[in-house]
Amino acid sequence: MIAFGLGIASRNSALDIIETFFPLPAVNPGEDFARELSALCGLEPGNSGYRTLDAEGLESFHAAASQAFEHEQERTAARLRDSDGPVLLCISRSQSPPTSVPEAFLKLHLLSHRLARPHEQNLDGIFSVLHNLAWTSRGPVSLQDLPGMQLQARKKGETLSVHSVDKFPKMSDYVVPSGVRLADSARIRLGAYIGEGTTVMHEGFINFNAGTEGQAMIEGRISAGVMVGENSDLGGSSSTMGTLSGGGTEIVSVGRNCLIGANAGIGMPLADGCIVEAGLYLTAGAVVRELDAEGNLVRTCKALELSGLAHRLFRRNSLTGAIECLPRKAHVALNEELHAHN
Amino acid sequence: MIAFGLGIASRNSALDIIETFFPLPAVNPGEDFARELSALCGLEPGNSGYRTLDAEGLESFHAAASQAFEHEQERTAARLRDSDGPVLLCISRSQSPPTSVPEAFLKLHLLSHRLARPHEQNLDGIFSVLHNLAWTSRGPVSLQDLPGMQLQARKKGETLSVHSVDKFPKMSDYVVPSGVRLADSARIRLGAYIGEGTTVMHEGFINFNAGTEGQAMIEGRISAGVMVGENSDLGGSSSTMGTLSGGGTEIVSVGRNCLIGANAGIGMPLADGCIVEAGLYLTAGAVVRELDAEGNLVRTCKALELSGLAHRLFRRNSLTGAIECLPRKAHVALNEELHAHN
Amino acid sequence: MIAFGLGIASRNSALDIIETFFPLPAVNPGEDFARELSALCGLEPGNSGYRTLDAEGLESFHAAASQAFEHEQERTAARLRDSDGPVLLCISRSQSPPTSVPEAFLKLHLLSHRLARPHEQNLDGIFSVLHNLAWTSRGPVSLQDLPGMQLQARKKGETLSVHSVDKFPKMSDYVVPSGVRLADSARIRLGAYIGEGTTVMHEGFINFNAGTEGQAMIEGRISAGVMVGENSDLGGSSSTMGTLSGGGTEIVSVGRNCLIGANAGIGMPLADGCIVEAGLYLTAGAVVRELDAEGNLVRTCKALELSGLAHRLFRRNSLTGAIECLPRKAHVALNEELHAHN
Repeated sequence: MIAFGLGIASRNSALDIIETFFPLPAVNPGEDFARELSALCGLEPGNSGYRTLDAEGLESFHAAASQAFEHEQERTAARLRDSDGPVLLCISRSQSPPTSVPEAFLKLHLLSHRLARPHEQNLDGIFSVLHNLAWTSRGPVSLQDLPGMQLQARKKGETLSVHSVDKFPKMSDYVVPSGVRLADSARIRLGAYIGEGTTVMHEGFINFNAGTEGQAMIEGRISAGVMVGENSDLGGSSSTMGTLSGGGTEIVSVGRNCLIGANAGIGMPLADGCIVEAGLYLTAGAVVRELDAEGNLVRTCKALELSGLAHRLFRRNSLTGAIECLPRKAHVALNEELHAHN
Repeated sequence: MIAFGLGIASRNSALDIIETFFPLPAVNPGEDFARELSALCGLEPGNSGYRTLDAEGLESFHAAASQAFEHEQERTAARLRDSDGPVLLCISRSQSPPTSVPEAFLKLHLLSHRLARPHEQNLDGIFSVLHNLAWTSRGPVSLQDLPGMQLQARKKGETLSVHSVDKFPKMSDYVVPSGVRLADSARIRLGAYIGEGTTVMHEGFINFNAGTEGQAMIEGRISAGVMVGENSDLGGSSSTMGTLSGGGTEIVSVGRNCLIGANAGIGMPLADGCIVEAGLYLTAGAVVRELDAEGNLVRTCKALELSGLAHRLFRRNSLTGAIECLPRKAHVALNEELHAHN
Repeated sequence: MIAFGLGIASRNSALDIIETFFPLPAVNPGEDFARELSALCGLEPGNSGYRTLDAEGLESFHAAASQAFEHEQERTAARLRDSDGPVLLCISRSQSPPTSVPEAFLKLHLLSHRLARPHEQNLDGIFSVLHNLAWTSRGPVSLQDLPGMQLQARKKGETLSVHSVDKFPKMSDYVVPSGVRLADSARIRLGAYIGEGTTVMHEGFINFNAGTEGQAMIEGRISAGVMVGENSDLGGSSSTMGTLSGGGTEIVSVGRNCLIGANAGIGMPLADGCIVEAGLYLTAGAVVRELDAEGNLVRTCKALELSGLAHRLFRRNSLTGAIECLPRKAHVALNEELHAHN
């Protein structure tokens, strides 16, 4: 997959590009338009890269978009004519790792614009490409520039507020995809893929390259790489174990129509229609008693071996303390009114 | 109960009212004043509604407030004379569901101003009345207006930061009730009822139509509809199960002098003086061993059946794994210094 | 230890100093410089206090710093010449409790600048010295000034956003120490001590007088007074029990190379190389089965008695429900790429 975007870049005091905003990223341009884009970037067709555009370059993009009947791109180019900050054009191949700040930002934008799904793009090395920045009330600031700017603001009786010091910004400063609610957007990184109809409550969290397929109620944490199926509900403070830190090695996912209870967690994939009882943390290696519908023991095995079974309830027996897996009875429905979006 | 308020409204680019701020909401106006208010709104006495006031309308309100010796209302009307945004008068009946954006906001203000307690007002259908908005560094913005405004800001080298995409704003942008600390106000919705002497720490959360009676230490989550009694302590990440989503059906409440430990939770009401051990999630249906003061088994029953018992400790026996309920010994006191407010 | 700093103070409408920002706090000035500083503050040598400096006082500081070859202090004094807000000089002794707002802020700065470690300074009574303030989009505001300012902003179509109502501000508005990432800085108080190489994720929290020794991955809560050793990992929503509220009396600490799993917690100190399984809350009084490497029972004792043992795994047996402590096998490594800072 080939992606491209016109972007506005932020520079630090050393004139390095530290961040890029792409108002209208896009994928799979037509053959002729793709050739024009590569030429504008000074790239061989099919390669990744970016180039800062001067006024003439922006007009060339405008003309090429017009000729390709890409009218939204044309309009965006027209709107960027009077940008104070530097405008650039970036091209990215999904198979190649990001090699520049603009390309890393373009790949993250694609996820949050729902143009690429988690795991569809090569993001190897993104941590070393991205700068660790202060995300402030005046936008992204390099850490070496920060103390001087903070003192300068204070002298005028102002505060330069630093909301985050991170390589990844919050998604909502770049794009709010359709049909979502995001109660505390500081907890959703650019690069989250949030399906139409998802509500992320204040305790919810979504990392980059992770997200939800469609309608969902997220009050727990979706770690990097984790996808949650439609009509599933992650309870408050529930956890999906990631593989970036902490020793987790299983790639976790959550099926459709699942409910992970409040303060519960999973260290293994969960099949469709499963419930994990509030408060139970189901690690991949936990030894679990599998029961049949009558409550008879079927077998004792590691939780991971049960990860393919649909419509199961996982609970800790409150008299024996044993973790049990049994066929599920009751149906869990998401609250309709709660999920009615405007 | 009849409530009213002068408000300043926000409109989107389509000129819909999307939000209203009421600096001085009030309840139960005197009979004459109430009649004047209804007339100003063009309403039959006792009905709910709102009307935008022109300069003349605002003067009429001012005169009526003066005549009713409502001097704070009079002063507020005077201060609103030079408002840039539209001023409106809204009247709301507690028994009727909200039918407009201003009325929904007025009802939420009443809760956070401690003029109405949770469950005292009809809030049916509030999710469909309220708009899903971007709450930004420049105030509330309609989602259809957002991308254009974000691009416009970026072209000038600025960031239009989106703190939340939600139907409910954070309370503290409207009112900070007396005697509270709110460490991270993004986690407290307008419509929270927060008692005098409550500290909400960074991990605390309070939904609308929910809150605390008085002094309390809240480091856990108070779900919609839940009330917490005086001198109770919700530990970090503790959970009170709500009924809006996730299958909970019991209306949860917490008595006085309770302690819900860190990472613990309840899916049932808790009587006065109860402790739930850190890490224990007590669902309504969990089967619990009730013990007497000597540790002898009294009976085995569902946790819900124990929800009326005061001064109990709920724990999971760390040798047998069984959930136990036993008479409580030690006394838990809130830290005095921590609760000294300015 | 003697500390000092030039600061810019914020005042409320009653002209009380409510907050102070110290761009370059320092400790242990040379003998001559220390004497000059005390004289400038009108203090006996060795005493704590502060004084607002007029232009002449600032020049005296500048001259004294120059004479002491304290060139960074000299430069800071020069930069403060055109400050709009009042400039003050504050001196603080680590052994004495804070007696003024500037001194309390100086002590908190020292922690976050890594000039004083947790527990190294006397902070007795800091809750009563600090004002409870609204931390807004326009800086700190006294609560009595807030409603008027909020109405004033609204009349112009603006929002005075209140991010927090607390005695402690967020650290990052004052200093970002080197080599850290702080995903959601609203959750880190001024007075946190954050070691070089620490990443605090969105779910992480660090109170004042608490923190990390060096490299660490913090996705859980570090309560007041708690220190976390190098190369340790606190999983998402994990809890370290504090002693400020909730009945905890043991001072908790976490050794080196530890992993506290997601949704787990400790109410006791943890020695080097220990793992607490995801979801397990280990209170000090929990009765635990200590096992040897072959799984044989060594003894049954309170968890607190095991707090000195290194390289142990604490888990709840998923078949018997008993909490067990056994020698640890696998090695947990922090993710290198994740911890590469710029």
